[in-house]
Amino acid sequence: MSDASPAANALERVRIVLCHTSLPANIGAVARAMKTMGLASLYLVSPKQFPHADAEALASRATDILDAARVCATLDEALAGTVYAAASTARNRDMSHPVLTPREAAARIVEEAQRGPVALVMGPEKFGLTVPEVNRCSVIASIPANPDYSSLNLAAAVQLFAYEIRLAAEQVERLPQQTFEAATFEEVEMLYAHLEEALLEIGFINPKEPKRLMQRMRRLFARVRLEREEVNILRGILNMAQEHARAARRQKS
Amino acid sequence: MSDASPAANALERVRIVLCHTSLPANIGAVARAMKTMGLASLYLVSPKQFPHADAEALASRATDILDAARVCATLDEALAGTVYAAASTARNRDMSHPVLTPREAAARIVEEAQRGPVALVMGPEKFGLTVPEVNRCSVIASIPANPDYSSLNLAAAVQLFAYEIRLAAEQVERLPQQTFEAATFEEVEMLYAHLEEALLEIGFINPKEPKRLMQRMRRLFARVRLEREEVNILRGILNMAQEHARAARRQKS
Repeated sequence: MSDASPAANALERVRIVLCHTSLPANIGAVARAMKTMGLASLYLVSPKQFPHADAEALASRATDILDAARVCATLDEALAGTVYAAASTARNRDMSHPVLTPREAAARIVEEAQRGPVALVMGPEKFGLTVPEVNRCSVIASIPANPDYSSLNLAAAVQLFAYEIRLAAEQVERLPQQTFEAATFEEVEMLYAHLEEALLEIGFINPKEPKRLMQRMRRLFARVRLEREEVNILRGILNMAQEHARAARRQKS
Repeated sequence: MSDASPAANALERVRIVLCHTSLPANIGAVARAMKTMGLASLYLVSPKQFPHADAEALASRATDILDAARVCATLDEALAGTVYAAASTARNRDMSHPVLTPREAAARIVEEAQRGPVALVMGPEKFGLTVPEVNRCSVIASIPANPDYSSLNLAAAVQLFAYEIRLAAEQVERLPQQTFEAATFEEVEMLYAHLEEALLEIGFINPKEPKRLMQRMRRLFARVRLEREEVNILRGILNMAQEHARAARRQKS
């Protein structure tokens, strides 16, 4: 794989995002796992301790990845600019997202990487990702495991995904080229915010419990992988609906 | 996967063999990686330190695998009774064995597990397996990796193989059933010993340098996966050749 190959380009666009990691040793082991498979882009969402000597020690000769790691305050910051994000969870907690195997997720990640930055999001060691965190991703990726003992070490899980991503990247030249422009994470989040506002304004959702419906909306749009143009169209529709609602209110008063 | 399923049966027959492991923490992390994928049979060939508190700590709740681990003095002891063994190496050092990807190796391991115990053999952390160790195995399995940084952590490599083995085991019911009886490791090793003795006796190999030819013989027979009956036939041929050589020597003297 040369640096300029489509495979290398795809690998360059993959961010590994670690959320609230407890043990700095795990961050180092993740860096090593990433580098063995040609991944380099590490994002750390409020790690408990970083930088740290344990991270350096476990990274072996992959400390360049630690040096270049970006520490973020929030998951949104780590996902800024991405067009696709897979959330790694041991099981589907909320049933709101499609669940892929690591192999399927890797194929999608590499495919979407042709359109922009993509992310694999890993939760903290003990508890995994929260439902709101999973909801910010496009898909759930779940490692098949022993039902009686499914708790992979964080770095082992990243190793496995990175391996599948590398294998998928080696196939990348065979993928059909797609031409549409994907909506970024921020654009889709702005759509959700706009949608919630509009649905409240037209009286479609209960202002006391808007979350349930919004989760269903996220589930729907996560499946379709929105294009930028589609986001613009949807927001145009929402604007129209809001105008009508406002006009109606004005007539009433 | 229920305990009695063909997949569970296949997983039960897979031994993970760690040769000369330096760090007990890695042994513990391997036990955890194995258990997440439903593997349980761990063999340790002269580990530097075992048992050890670091192994217990890294095993998390997989200490049952450490408790049941078998410590062996030699690789031969760990391979006793096996019908197939894959040697994990970063690259093909001696070019004497076929080299499979982890996916291909996992498929073969699971297929051969229908005939008897099988093994995945891992070398020590820094140096990997020696050529004589690789020569005792049926095949080389090599993890595709970044050519500039291919050194996976031992437990990460086991995690990856165990994952592929689990996926392969889930396909096991679809495999064609094979009926021949596979030769065990000991039977094949006895054939090699017999072959070397016979080839020396008939004057085919140079007594000062018998190893080179024997390595080529190992390469050949590792590829064909001998049946027990075939080993018996070959050893019968060797016996005949030896008798003729002895008779010829007697006539000379």
